[in-house]
Amino acid sequence: MGNLWQISEESLSTNLKQMQSQETVFTVGNGYFCTRGTFEEGYPHGTPATLLFGVFDAIPIAKEELANAPDWVGIQLFVNGERFRLDKGKLLSYTRTLDIQTGLLIRTVQWESPSGIKVRINSERFASLADEHLGMIRYSVTLDEAPKDQAVDVSLRANFNAARGNYDVMHWDTLDQGHTSDLLWLESRTKKTQVTLAQSMSFNSGDSELRKEFVDGDTEPSIRLTGSLAPGATITAEKVVMMYTSRDGDEPLQATLDHHQKLLHTAAEATAGSAHTVLVFDDQFQQQKAAWEQYWQQADVVIEGDNKAQVGVRYNIYQLRINVSAHDSRYSIAAKGMTGFGYRGHVFHDTEIFMLPFFTYVLPDIARDLLLYRYHLLAAARKKAASNGYDGAQFPWESTLNGEETTPPSIVHPETGEVMPVLNGFIELHITSSIAYATWEYWRVTGDDAFMRDYGAELLLSTALFWDSRAEKNEHHHNYTISDVIGPDEWHEHVNNNAHTNIMAKRNIQTALSTLKWLKTAAPAKANALTEQLNLTDERLMHMQDVQEHLYVPQDAHTGLIEQFDGFFKLPTFDQSKYKGRKDSYQGILGISEVQKYQLIKQADVLMMLTMLRQETDENTKKVNWDYYFPITDHDYGSSLTPALHAILGNELGHTEEAYRMFMKGALVDIENLRGNTPEGIHAACSGAVWQAVVFGFAGLRVTETGYSTEPHWPDNWQRLAFQFKHKGETVKVDLHR
Amino acid sequence: MGNLWQISEESLSTNLKQMQSQETVFTVGNGYFCTRGTFEEGYPHGTPATLLFGVFDAIPIAKEELANAPDWVGIQLFVNGERFRLDKGKLLSYTRTLDIQTGLLIRTVQWESPSGIKVRINSERFASLADEHLGMIRYSVTLDEAPKDQAVDVSLRANFNAARGNYDVMHWDTLDQGHTSDLLWLESRTKKTQVTLAQSMSFNSGDSELRKEFVDGDTEPSIRLTGSLAPGATITAEKVVMMYTSRDGDEPLQATLDHHQKLLHTAAEATAGSAHTVLVFDDQFQQQKAAWEQYWQQADVVIEGDNKAQVGVRYNIYQLRINVSAHDSRYSIAAKGMTGFGYRGHVFHDTEIFMLPFFTYVLPDIARDLLLYRYHLLAAARKKAASNGYDGAQFPWESTLNGEETTPPSIVHPETGEVMPVLNGFIELHITSSIAYATWEYWRVTGDDAFMRDYGAELLLSTALFWDSRAEKNEHHHNYTISDVIGPDEWHEHVNNNAHTNIMAKRNIQTALSTLKWLKTAAPAKANALTEQLNLTDERLMHMQDVQEHLYVPQDAHTGLIEQFDGFFKLPTFDQSKYKGRKDSYQGILGISEVQKYQLIKQADVLMMLTMLRQETDENTKKVNWDYYFPITDHDYGSSLTPALHAILGNELGHTEEAYRMFMKGALVDIENLRGNTPEGIHAACSGAVWQAVVFGFAGLRVTETGYSTEPHWPDNWQRLAFQFKHKGETVKVDLHR
Repeated sequence: MGNLWQISEESLSTNLKQMQSQETVFTVGNGYFCTRGTFEEGYPHGTPATLLFGVFDAIPIAKEELANAPDWVGIQLFVNGERFRLDKGKLLSYTRTLDIQTGLLIRTVQWESPSGIKVRINSERFASLADEHLGMIRYSVTLDEAPKDQAVDVSLRANFNAARGNYDVMHWDTLDQGHTSDLLWLESRTKKTQVTLAQSMSFNSGDSELRKEFVDGDTEPSIRLTGSLAPGATITAEKVVMMYTSRDGDEPLQATLDHHQKLLHTAAEATAGSAHTVLVFDDQFQQQKAAWEQYWQQADVVIEGDNKAQVGVRYNIYQLRINVSAHDSRYSIAAKGMTGFGYRGHVFHDTEIFMLPFFTYVLPDIARDLLLYRYHLLAAARKKAASNGYDGAQFPWESTLNGEETTPPSIVHPETGEVMPVLNGFIELHITSSIAYATWEYWRVTGDDAFMRDYGAELLLSTALFWDSRAEKNEHHHNYTISDVIGPDEWHEHVNNNAHTNIMAKRNIQTALSTLKWLKTAAPAKANALTEQLNLTDERLMHMQDVQEHLYVPQDAHTGLIEQFDGFFKLPTFDQSKYKGRKDSYQGILGISEVQKYQLIKQADVLMMLTMLRQETDENTKKVNWDYYFPITDHDYGSSLTPALHAILGNELGHTEEAYRMFMKGALVDIENLRGNTPEGIHAACSGAVWQAVVFGFAGLRVTETGYSTEPHWPDNWQRLAFQFKHKGETVKVDLHR
Repeated sequence: MGNLWQISEESLSTNLKQMQSQETVFTVGNGYFCTRGTFEEGYPHGTPATLLFGVFDAIPIAKEELANAPDWVGIQLFVNGERFRLDKGKLLSYTRTLDIQTGLLIRTVQWESPSGIKVRINSERFASLADEHLGMIRYSVTLDEAPKDQAVDVSLRANFNAARGNYDVMHWDTLDQGHTSDLLWLESRTKKTQVTLAQSMSFNSGDSELRKEFVDGDTEPSIRLTGSLAPGATITAEKVVMMYTSRDGDEPLQATLDHHQKLLHTAAEATAGSAHTVLVFDDQFQQQKAAWEQYWQQADVVIEGDNKAQVGVRYNIYQLRINVSAHDSRYSIAAKGMTGFGYRGHVFHDTEIFMLPFFTYVLPDIARDLLLYRYHLLAAARKKAASNGYDGAQFPWESTLNGEETTPPSIVHPETGEVMPVLNGFIELHITSSIAYATWEYWRVTGDDAFMRDYGAELLLSTALFWDSRAEKNEHHHNYTISDVIGPDEWHEHVNNNAHTNIMAKRNIQTALSTLKWLKTAAPAKANALTEQLNLTDERLMHMQDVQEHLYVPQDAHTGLIEQFDGFFKLPTFDQSKYKGRKDSYQGILGISEVQKYQLIKQADVLMMLTMLRQETDENTKKVNWDYYFPITDHDYGSSLTPALHAILGNELGHTEEAYRMFMKGALVDIENLRGNTPEGIHAACSGAVWQAVVFGFAGLRVTETGYSTEPHWPDNWQRLAFQFKHKGETVKVDLHR
């Protein structure tokens, strides 16, 4: 691994799952859209996808999913009428590289056609970070060898392909299609949600000998360049694509055409050429590089001495950028970002717990947008709480655009037809405190008082009211309990007093009350308004205080050991040694009901809570609980969320080697498809956890009211660790040397 | 309604549901494929579909569905670059007619483009009954008026469109695509079941001034004719399409190209023209007319004095032909035929009880194929019986190609996510006796002893063995009962001793034993072989005899009234008078569990059984049960199967007016979209019931061992009733005059 900014492959993956996994890995994106790394010429069972930030269509049961847009990457090459396709002819050489420093995907292929024509194809693709509506491909063909050393007929067809679905489900109807003198355009609309998408395309070559033709069509309109290619000669063409949707404004087609035409005409004027043949790739790529350079200046994490870790961390930081808008708070980051169809673009606590810390510390403007997303959806969260008989705001376990619960209430087994209820939308409650936690952390690190005053306080108090009403009072013990929930460890359902849930609920109420206190001084009018709006009577506030103080925490006062939920310690332990070499989770192996019977957990639950609250937890509690829970967690096929997160407590407790092992499971989860499900998209939460593992774990960063400290832990070979973050508006550069 | 062979509309339906209903109504087909009546130029939210006999793709839960093939009807017209589309510009006149005498769909439109160009478009389309792989469209454009009276540029694009799904679900991948000197072809494969479909297209005009161009493409390949059109002039072009699948043979693409080329070249030779411009529509349509003429000679039913009834009956007889292959017994007739996506192409008892009588009496070769379909799937039916702990053969409630149960075990409400179990696949048993009944009727009417010897006897005995093992012996009463079933009235689930089920099971055993007796004389070797194969020991045969004699029939010996199932008479009656003007079934209004509590039924249950056994049932039983059950049946929004079937008993009992009302509900169910669900396809069972209503009901036909009789009942205005049928190989013409 020479280059520390590149993911490469040197051979074509013909194994279907591996190919689709690499399509995910080689995704390009810019937060407005992402496009999977499928081939321009297509490949059998390839899964082309372009998903746009917040562009959903309705589906049964799971409410809605990000709607795979008409594919813009298609370019078909014909030489003497023979079509270039990697499943025919002979592949002489192949390399594909994603340069994450510049967001450029490059492929070079040497191919021999069935009749013996040898060509070299080079393609470069990017989704512009400088101009989020823009995607580009530069495509070149060189004739390496032809029968009798004669020129060949060459044809390049750049198209839009509307026949693309989310797997097999179609979401778009073509509204209209046409072309102007230099652009071809396609206007589509989602079938159910009525979102309009306009896409325009130009396809130019500097070679004026090529004949250009616009081919209209509702599902596969194209621009075709036709001509002749002499041995040793090269044709280069640029496919420029612009996209706007009705979420951007009322006239997406006009916006697309204007923007696209301006781009071409400006370039044409600059070069005194014609918009019909002008080349713009180099210019636009300069802007792309500059935009990415700016990002990396803020976001890069340098690890010296461990190239694999270095590339892995950078790849995850790349993902954290391409999957979120830099300015749109109407949607958040999906579990798989926009890189695949898994989880349908729904938003989980993955954002607040795993990804938000990166943004809070590095790109606070985006962090603010991610919190505003929740703020905008408070009405729906209040409705959910009320419909369950509670006060305040209960956020949905899965969320999309309108804040309604989008967890499917049940799934039907695709083969047997067996119905399996999905309980998470009903009883996995801790998402609500996760949002409060992220709000508080954002405030603590950024010092953004205006946000806290205008939005954060209402978020904290509304969620606190939910817990206040949800807690069940036990007159006998004078305490409160929370029964019948699912904690982060989803392998145990219908549990009582999940420690994570209870402790984070307490903290939610506590931070809400602190915030109200602060608000009364900092912005008394707002404090009064909120008090009235949320009906925060003295009696109510006293009750909240009481719940906060007496909500039951299942911790042994003597040992410090926390019981994950009531009765967990009574469950039999599970002998994992019999399952060495398994390729499935214990839930998959044992079944949904069987796995519940053991002390065997899907992911960090108590340990996640202790990681979140690490600056206010004593070391003994961390140690005794780590020793108990770490060994009984399925780190390989349980949840992908927490392996890397374990690196934080692991480092604190001196388990640097274990921490490094956990961190690398996260850092490479997609690059190496460690869990076998990368075809459905990257693991976005894991990307956030990887950043946290390095910064909070190996570097040991701790931010307090007044400053920060580090306490490095060095895995073998690591020599240097450098990054930067923002603390209350100030940029802090950390550069640690062993 | 002037023409007695035509369904027409004089205006465009812009209401979405009405438009989609008309797409169903105007379906053309030939038993190999059906193509819905969508417009060549497309229309927003149109539902184009071409379904092929037995061409399925796998889906979750419901196993498989007929896979909507790439659309072959597309022709886009451009005049001076303006696209002809009915949702833009001005529609000056519009008529569409399906001529069921010849299977020809004709549309004539006068349209003014947004810029003021007036054109007249005429299209004629058919699926050839003479050559089942062939579909054709003749398309002509006349320039009625142009600005400044100048010629306009005209372009016609005939395409295949692979971006079609079953609603939004895609089933095909493009395997390959290309063109020869006169044909363009597309090769597709179903995603899951790996059925290959080859389609070829030619698009010729006699006008040699038009430029022709082949435009290749994976999802929307096309042939384009471009030229100039002078005021008053007409361009006519013919789109000829050929289709073969891998179910026809190993090389569908070669077969398609050979067949298509032969058709063009033969015509070119005959006219000394070139295959590139040869016109074949007239010739092929002559053959189409001849094939339909032959069909109507056998199948027509003439009603004089009631044009609406006349056209309605013919329309249903048209449907009975286009939805079934004339030679392929690997598949049967789906509930919606191949005219829409409803019920996914699954086969129900609709075939045996409602449609098969038509084929048995009119087209016995097809009836034989339909029964062979079940015979071929005996292995799966035996497996189903065995898996439930029974002997013999238990046929699935819904069936496709391999005979496994394809009723979805549950459905999830698309909005609420509520899971609703579907019990029919588990406990709706009477399909098994329906198949036995149809087998016996086929033999009785056709006298096809060879079929009965080779296939029928095994069907009858295997199904009888199922009932023999399914019946539960009650030592106390020395009788047998059958508990926990659903009868034809599906609004009552988990019932005991459903009279229909029990009586038809008795008859199944009885006819099986009769057949075995016959076989012992007629083909003793076969009788011995079957006895051994099915393990028909003397003890077993005695047991079957005992079950047949003592299977409980819930009939009052005194009054003759049959109780639909144990306890039905104890249910409260239901006051329907409160629900006048409803637009939904009582189940839809009351809910699945509530409707079960009343004496309110979805469809004929006892009365269906009495209709089936009408030649062996006394008049009092018919009368007393008619009087009881007819009024408590939801004839409007219950099942579409039985309204028309009621006309048989209704006529026998002298209720001619009621019978006529019921008959017309069936005859017009699709033409007038009476139930609102015609968009999902025609009601094929109802088509069969309509034929039965006329022949068995109004004509009162009774066939016996030695001959036949009629007993006409004349609705108002009916003056003459004529049809023909076959009895034991002899054609019998019936011509009744009032």
